[in-house]
Amino acid sequence: MSKGLLIVISGPSGTGKGTICRELLRRNKNINLSISATTRKPRNGEVDGINYFFITKEDFEDMIRKEEFLEYANVYGNYYGTPKKFVLDKLDEGKDVLLEIDIQGALSVKKLYPDGIFIFILPPSMEELRHRIEKRGTETEESLKTRLNSAYKEISYVNEYEYAIINDEVDKAVSKIEFIIEAERCRVKRLGEIIKRYEEV
Amino acid sequence: MSKGLLIVISGPSGTGKGTICRELLRRNKNINLSISATTRKPRNGEVDGINYFFITKEDFEDMIRKEEFLEYANVYGNYYGTPKKFVLDKLDEGKDVLLEIDIQGALSVKKLYPDGIFIFILPPSMEELRHRIEKRGTETEESLKTRLNSAYKEISYVNEYEYAIINDEVDKAVSKIEFIIEAERCRVKRLGEIIKRYEEV
Repeated sequence: MSKGLLIVISGPSGTGKGTICRELLRRNKNINLSISATTRKPRNGEVDGINYFFITKEDFEDMIRKEEFLEYANVYGNYYGTPKKFVLDKLDEGKDVLLEIDIQGALSVKKLYPDGIFIFILPPSMEELRHRIEKRGTETEESLKTRLNSAYKEISYVNEYEYAIINDEVDKAVSKIEFIIEAERCRVKRLGEIIKRYEEV
Repeated sequence: MSKGLLIVISGPSGTGKGTICRELLRRNKNINLSISATTRKPRNGEVDGINYFFITKEDFEDMIRKEEFLEYANVYGNYYGTPKKFVLDKLDEGKDVLLEIDIQGALSVKKLYPDGIFIFILPPSMEELRHRIEKRGTETEESLKTRLNSAYKEISYVNEYEYAIINDEVDKAVSKIEFIIEAERCRVKRLGEIIKRYEEV
């Protein structure tokens, strides 16, 4: 049996990567979403084991020491991380796993698991990204600037990814990810066992 | 405008790569088939400029000297080659080009044009390949053995390709090639100009 595929999706905030991932999962019931662990308190409606694994700071730091994360970060005093075991177990079972993580996280995963499929979501244009962030209505002029500047910085990391998708239409963007997944299944580097069968006869 | 894609398809004889290529072209009118030049005489029904460019030995050798081939070979005294100009012009115009060539040819093309998409067609199994070659009915036991042996040797070259497709069903194999083409359009290395637009603003 061949290994499952690790699909890593990231991109600046405001590019709609969350919507794309939800739609990808809705259309492909066979793809497993990786669930992050965090030390922050659950918000209203968030369920342990579905939205996040809510764990204590002590447990989280213990897992860091035991190298049980594919990647982790401390954001404003709260830890967030991707537990290795869930992901690697699914891949070994031949199941595909989706990771929706930020760019720093993706680059850490790439070091530990270079066989992942690294996909960067781009906004249709930087103007459109500005509109989208503005439309949320929660931004002051100052924080809008900060967000746009960080988006510019983040976009320069696209060259670390293998694929980039411009999200001008969610359905099309999701189809492109599906094409990428099917194409990756045909990569010679993933067909080792299958190809051996031809050579052995 | 982005460049067209050069799609290079090869594989041992008997894998059905000819059928796959015809079906791919039928389903994708936008893909241009590269036409080979040859010094052999046209067979019944073959048309110059459609099946091959039929040229003289002198003209062919002149083109070799001027490095006007992407690849060429001499098979039983006849030259066969892929004229560079047709292929590169189409790619520059943003059009995709299909090359159906043998493995040695594909490896030559890879050296000159590593940005091509190199796809290897595998038979469902070596037993099935034997059946297919036998079914043609034109083989003696001896020539069947020679063909199978050369197929084994050829299959070991699959590792020089980026993609391999098992041809158990023509429709499915063609769909996989279509997925690969769509996925390749999302490769960051092909999106240079587009990505620059984001960085420049």
